[in-house]
Amino acid sequence: MPDTAATAAPVTDVRFLEGVKVIDFTQFEAGPSCTEVLAWMGAEVVKIENPNRGDPGRRMKPDLTDDDPYYFHVLNANKKSITVNLKSESGLQIVKDLLREADVMTENFAPGAIERLGLGYDEVRKINPGIIYAQIKGFGEGSPFEKNLAFDMIAQACGGTFSTTGEADGPPTRPGFTLGDTGTGMLMSNTILGALYKKQQTGEGHRLQVAMQDAMLQYIRVNFATQGKTGKAAARGGSKVPGIDLSPMGLYPCAPGGANDYVYIMTSRANPAHWDNLLKVVGREDLIGDERYATHDLRHAREKEVDEIVAKWTRTRTKLEAMQEVGAAGIPAGAVLDTMELQNDVTFEQRGIMQTMVHPQHSPFKMPAWPVRVDGKVCRVTASPVLGEHTDQVLGDWLGLDDAAVGALKAGSAVGG
Amino acid sequence: MPDTAATAAPVTDVRFLEGVKVIDFTQFEAGPSCTEVLAWMGAEVVKIENPNRGDPGRRMKPDLTDDDPYYFHVLNANKKSITVNLKSESGLQIVKDLLREADVMTENFAPGAIERLGLGYDEVRKINPGIIYAQIKGFGEGSPFEKNLAFDMIAQACGGTFSTTGEADGPPTRPGFTLGDTGTGMLMSNTILGALYKKQQTGEGHRLQVAMQDAMLQYIRVNFATQGKTGKAAARGGSKVPGIDLSPMGLYPCAPGGANDYVYIMTSRANPAHWDNLLKVVGREDLIGDERYATHDLRHAREKEVDEIVAKWTRTRTKLEAMQEVGAAGIPAGAVLDTMELQNDVTFEQRGIMQTMVHPQHSPFKMPAWPVRVDGKVCRVTASPVLGEHTDQVLGDWLGLDDAAVGALKAGSAVGG
Repeated sequence: MPDTAATAAPVTDVRFLEGVKVIDFTQFEAGPSCTEVLAWMGAEVVKIENPNRGDPGRRMKPDLTDDDPYYFHVLNANKKSITVNLKSESGLQIVKDLLREADVMTENFAPGAIERLGLGYDEVRKINPGIIYAQIKGFGEGSPFEKNLAFDMIAQACGGTFSTTGEADGPPTRPGFTLGDTGTGMLMSNTILGALYKKQQTGEGHRLQVAMQDAMLQYIRVNFATQGKTGKAAARGGSKVPGIDLSPMGLYPCAPGGANDYVYIMTSRANPAHWDNLLKVVGREDLIGDERYATHDLRHAREKEVDEIVAKWTRTRTKLEAMQEVGAAGIPAGAVLDTMELQNDVTFEQRGIMQTMVHPQHSPFKMPAWPVRVDGKVCRVTASPVLGEHTDQVLGDWLGLDDAAVGALKAGSAVGG
Repeated sequence: MPDTAATAAPVTDVRFLEGVKVIDFTQFEAGPSCTEVLAWMGAEVVKIENPNRGDPGRRMKPDLTDDDPYYFHVLNANKKSITVNLKSESGLQIVKDLLREADVMTENFAPGAIERLGLGYDEVRKINPGIIYAQIKGFGEGSPFEKNLAFDMIAQACGGTFSTTGEADGPPTRPGFTLGDTGTGMLMSNTILGALYKKQQTGEGHRLQVAMQDAMLQYIRVNFATQGKTGKAAARGGSKVPGIDLSPMGLYPCAPGGANDYVYIMTSRANPAHWDNLLKVVGREDLIGDERYATHDLRHAREKEVDEIVAKWTRTRTKLEAMQEVGAAGIPAGAVLDTMELQNDVTFEQRGIMQTMVHPQHSPFKMPAWPVRVDGKVCRVTASPVLGEHTDQVLGDWLGLDDAAVGALKAGSAVGG
């Protein structure tokens, strides 16, 4: 299976960032999701990990055996790992030597931790004035909460995404995915890439900082726009969109009535024919031209009634049949797909959007790849690194250390063995 | 107010992409959010707009007067606009002349539309082999739905985000923000920046393509990881996180009981002291050491009971008081903030994260800026362009056309007047 997929899928080694060296102290998700973008585009991303446990994201339950490598896989594909004891003087020196060679350094430790290690920006720029030094924290410098810890849910709660999600008359609701982490990572990687573009011309370094709370505002800007128009805080609307009074629009139940058997249908204001065409699809040609339903505003005033006209038909179709039939009539429609359905849909694998990670220690794992195609192909996913897998190689390549020199560092516990 | 803010806030003109020229055909959100990233980092992004209406995102309700510029503002800050009649032969020629000078071209028209205009990749690469040609569609080439239209909600439904959002026993739910659009834009801008880095060395061009459905998989990768472990489709959990059995963890109600008066509190598995410390905060020192609540697993088995211990206290505090008191005890906590609370929190403005757009035709509008700080400062937000504002300037700067030449194009309706 993995082999067939690897052969058939249009994948390639994207080399946009060939030669770019990244020293990566990040852990869990917000930081690793950022540096993985660089790795997928061909940068050499070297994780600096603690010799004992490594990135805590390697084991989501610290008290369990290593039966949950998936979180680490999805966030650390295509990277390298070296283990260094940062509490040892010679370990710290090795990292400084590596930083002298690096283009980028990234970290997302708790506030103050990188400075306590002696690797704050002012120290690192002395070693390498051209470095792009990128930091991700929960809250911004100057925020009343700048010293606070944050996890994904905290950043999302404080960053507004909860307040816009959920039923209109229900509580705020967690969006069911880690936008606080990966959403932040995507903004930092963009900015690192901008700084790298400039650095290529001038050699200049910069300090980049982003807070997870602040990053959430980037993703709810349309809610701010709605607030600009209404003068009120952006509301929740279940699966409707507050501020867009189209009808029909929303989630409609499908056969056989499982937890995710729904189809989203949206008729557009820009295309008045959508309503008539939808009536044909649902077998209600008798309502074409009916004055009660002539416009979005009239239909919106009878929204429950209109929704039931649509739902009566969608209940007779599976979500994929409904998507197919409504979509074929030129009306936007989308089935609600869950992760298993997405996983089992071979067209993602055929297109390279899902790829199987083949790993030396863990089972093959099919996972989403970077979804942007380059000249028709998708960046190849390679294995997430085994802890310390690349210590010898990186110390050799970057610093010219031979086996004896690396062996001495290992013997002194400066690096992991 | 705007002046004070502009003076006080740490903002700067980021020039990472100075000299990079972008021809931008994008509309609505997925495309404009992508090119705005380039604009914020200093690229010259020129929107090519229809002389009559321009980007349809300029007016969200086509039948209304221009009272809703906010959507356009948040997605088109720092860009330029020229108006060109693409149906006119000389208009099309002007665009081809501009494309010869460009580094990047972007579009997110319906499938097939750019090719029908005569500006498909094979045409444009003939004019400019070094161009980075970036396309955003709803569904990927080779997907069974590749010809379908998509809007944000369709992409999210088909991309898995709905299936993970909502109450455990309720229907799938729309995340209340436009991740299908902006989330896709952020992935494409990353890839354009990667391609620009390489182009700077080699001059090489590339075709980049992303589908909104595929892009959603990038944001739900942790749900795929959870599925990897459990073998089941990633579930919904309300404001809990399926797969993370921590207790206490979740949303707790606060005074005075308004729609968004909640605080998220999370005790970590890595830090057993969180529970004892939280008991002190909530005035239940009597439970410290109680065997019934000694571990996350024990507490998770009594989750309702444990949640009520916490909620009984949170109901006596506002969400900001609760966040403050719990956070001060070293336990991650975050108030649920809505867009109005975020808008009115002056610390965002003081830090440059929110900035006021001063516009020649519309009221000043406070909006989120690109949240990544560069050397302590945030990219300055400048006005979204008036339709056709930069026609003369861009045709002069890029093509050397003088007033007479531009006037002749206007007289012939090739460009807007």
